[in-house]
Amino acid sequence: MTFEPIGVVHSPFKTIEEMPIQPAGADAVAGTIEIRPDLVEGLRDLDGFSHLFVIYHFHQVRQTQLTVTPFLDTRPHGVFATRAPKRPNPIGLSVVRLAGIEGNLLHIENLDMLEGTPVLDIKPFVPEFDQPEQVRTGWLEAARGRVLNQKSDRRFE
Amino acid sequence: MTFEPIGVVHSPFKTIEEMPIQPAGADAVAGTIEIRPDLVEGLRDLDGFSHLFVIYHFHQVRQTQLTVTPFLDTRPHGVFATRAPKRPNPIGLSVVRLAGIEGNLLHIENLDMLEGTPVLDIKPFVPEFDQPEQVRTGWLEAARGRVLNQKSDRRFE
Repeated sequence: MTFEPIGVVHSPFKTIEEMPIQPAGADAVAGTIEIRPDLVEGLRDLDGFSHLFVIYHFHQVRQTQLTVTPFLDTRPHGVFATRAPKRPNPIGLSVVRLAGIEGNLLHIENLDMLEGTPVLDIKPFVPEFDQPEQVRTGWLEAARGRVLNQKSDRRFE
Repeated sequence: MTFEPIGVVHSPFKTIEEMPIQPAGADAVAGTIEIRPDLVEGLRDLDGFSHLFVIYHFHQVRQTQLTVTPFLDTRPHGVFATRAPKRPNPIGLSVVRLAGIEGNLLHIENLDMLEGTPVLDIKPFVPEFDQPEQVRTGWLEAARGRVLNQKSDRRFE
């Protein structure tokens, strides 16, 4: 199936090395998502939501790996058990904080995407749908808490 | 950009009318996601996670609407302020509970997808990344609590 971007990310991160690995590690980093002008009508009432899912294309990823050693571990895991970008479909997902909307510009407070990232979809975060209880996180249990200051490197280019 | 499905959903919901609108409304409904056999290596260690994001194609959606009146309200909202399927890119996102894995079959406990839904990606749900605090949900505030028993209808075919 074929998709066209609905917009593009403007971010202070110009290279993969300087990116945080998830928005939780990028609290202070602001950026914008520029939505295509012909889609602005679709943003109506979005400003009532504090948090959004952004679904985007890892546009700088050139390869797929079925087993990856993620930033947070030294052992390999199946790519579907990680958030690593070299996936069979290089689609990214982040929960970001919406600070405000001006026209077709979404002001985002905790970006973890590269400048120029093509955005595929924006959805409101709704706790009733999106916040499960009694969550287990497998290999990541040991890594929890180490995430906040972890930066990316070149392994996923 | 073009993506190929990584798998397919097997669900008791054969038509749009009988679907719940989100997994929170489908606690008791079990189903499976059948991953392509050539991608099974990518599932390694996924069984340690209790919850997954499933990113999928709303394959029965034929139209885009920039303004929609969602199931949970009587007033129109911009499509990006809703989870409605008739989006510029008909991509769905659900948080589901993983009950177990057998070979290339993921057993899911709270499905809200149609039989035959093409799956684009699977990611582990990680509270540190995916569970924001102090969430506001705009027009949905009034509708919260009404979600659990809401069923779909034909408006999004």
